[in-house]
Amino acid sequence: MKMLINVPESVVPDALRGMAAAHPELTVDVERRVVVRRDAPVAGKVGLVSGGGSGHEPLHGGFVGPGMLDAACPGEVFTSPVPDQMVRAAAAVDSGKGVLFVVKNYTGDVLNFNMAAELAEDEGIQVASVLVNDDVAVTDSLYTAGRRGTGATLFVEKMAGAAAEEGAPLERVEAIARRVNESSRSFGVALTACTTPAKGSPTFDLPPGELELGVGIHGEPGRERRAMMTSGEIADYAVGTVLEELRPSGPVLALVNGAGGTPLLELYGFTAEVHRVLRERGVPVARTLVGNYVTSLDMAGASVTLCRVDDELLRLWDAPVRTPGLRWGC
Amino acid sequence: MKMLINVPESVVPDALRGMAAAHPELTVDVERRVVVRRDAPVAGKVGLVSGGGSGHEPLHGGFVGPGMLDAACPGEVFTSPVPDQMVRAAAAVDSGKGVLFVVKNYTGDVLNFNMAAELAEDEGIQVASVLVNDDVAVTDSLYTAGRRGTGATLFVEKMAGAAAEEGAPLERVEAIARRVNESSRSFGVALTACTTPAKGSPTFDLPPGELELGVGIHGEPGRERRAMMTSGEIADYAVGTVLEELRPSGPVLALVNGAGGTPLLELYGFTAEVHRVLRERGVPVARTLVGNYVTSLDMAGASVTLCRVDDELLRLWDAPVRTPGLRWGC
Repeated sequence: MKMLINVPESVVPDALRGMAAAHPELTVDVERRVVVRRDAPVAGKVGLVSGGGSGHEPLHGGFVGPGMLDAACPGEVFTSPVPDQMVRAAAAVDSGKGVLFVVKNYTGDVLNFNMAAELAEDEGIQVASVLVNDDVAVTDSLYTAGRRGTGATLFVEKMAGAAAEEGAPLERVEAIARRVNESSRSFGVALTACTTPAKGSPTFDLPPGELELGVGIHGEPGRERRAMMTSGEIADYAVGTVLEELRPSGPVLALVNGAGGTPLLELYGFTAEVHRVLRERGVPVARTLVGNYVTSLDMAGASVTLCRVDDELLRLWDAPVRTPGLRWGC
Repeated sequence: MKMLINVPESVVPDALRGMAAAHPELTVDVERRVVVRRDAPVAGKVGLVSGGGSGHEPLHGGFVGPGMLDAACPGEVFTSPVPDQMVRAAAAVDSGKGVLFVVKNYTGDVLNFNMAAELAEDEGIQVASVLVNDDVAVTDSLYTAGRRGTGATLFVEKMAGAAAEEGAPLERVEAIARRVNESSRSFGVALTACTTPAKGSPTFDLPPGELELGVGIHGEPGRERRAMMTSGEIADYAVGTVLEELRPSGPVLALVNGAGGTPLLELYGFTAEVHRVLRERGVPVARTLVGNYVTSLDMAGASVTLCRVDDELLRLWDAPVRTPGLRWGC
């Protein structure tokens, strides 16, 4: 598998050098692998910190900036960052109002963020943590006990980030994050596997005529394999599965997320089918975000994340955000 | 090749239905295939219209909105739209101040936009046209006489769009567009071919260990094939080739554009190498945009577009823009 890289060993620091070059509004510590908004710590503001394995870009480093994350810690590809990165990030963004860790539910991330929270508390930083676990495809998976954290991470980081930007205290930012996670569910499909730079070949085997229903963002197995389906059939399955667990009685926010290797042309076609299913089920869609936001390297496929929203969450969603990967209203 | 589609025949209208669902700020005529900003025509404003084959998303439909295009006409995949679409778009956006067509230099597009300009003039709409031909890889190619139009299209649409938004008259908007095109040069590489829905198999044959240097955005042949190179070597070749023709004496704007199938993680690593080469050559970089903007379906690869900028062009670049694909400052 050909890649636009130098050597597999330097993929993450190379990308961080590129982020530093392209985004002078961020402070990128390439050696220690921490991305921080340049004006951090912001006086009177709760700090939002996330992180996880690389390979899901723009998540998380591309979501650092006003209205979203204060800092992100990228690990190696599909590998948790280490507690040192997280403690350093917390120290860089804490204004004295405390820090919220947004943690995707993978065993390594959970362990390391827990350890980092203890270490940061030892340094006098108040830390709260919220676990994101929105993926309804499977309970317990290759790297997870319980549900995996996927597309809802973007929703949590955006809406908790907006609350923090408005000056909400830590308990409130944490409560928003928790509510967004509990109000969100996701389901993803893969048409192809992805290839990590270290391995150089597809991470799993998916025959030409089949797709994986319920795949994880590292290519973890889903619910089942089937013969290839149309965009409309996939939308029926994915949205149907999400709605079974979410049971919205009001409007939802929809993320139609590309896995990385699927063209935007196809994602928009899939979006039409997602909207059709929601219309048929009587679920009003308040906002729709379409694009490659929580990716799995070059995997072809897509996921649907829905979040039940009320006026407060919608206001936080619409609030200004200025990051490399998500930007509006300012 | 598996795709997230219903049937190949409906890929473009399906995507337009998805755009309509996701972007209520746009008026999408699915049947007639025209995407228009909802508030068009804007009183006293020159209208900007572009279009071309689909498969390059977000170009062009994703660049419709305040500060950029007023309308876009998507053709079938890699196929020029027809004059009817362009005339309809011109009529929808003309406020009486005239319309500028931004045309990528491909034979079909040029013919059809020329015919549309005549038809629109017959209807009393003043039309000017600017040809984008920034690709230094080859003169004359599969679909082109002269240089191909690629990444600079984004620069032209953004900066001419900003001038139009400020109320500049047609001659001025046209002059800006022409100057941006003449100040821009691009070079692209492919690591894999792309697959069109209609064909269902790769559009050209690229062996596992080789890359295509100077590839076009439809997979047209470039300058040469070589054994796979590192990101740094590719940056040396691509940036070196662009600089030979561009010869900037001041700052440049840089677009590091993904072909569609290359992960953002790799694009950022490539950005670091592009910046290294420019630093070594003593070329200051005023702004850098990194991402999948002018794509070729699922092709893996990237291109570099540089534009010589002065204070005026930089101000137009930084001006607010609010489109699905490009958005800042508002």
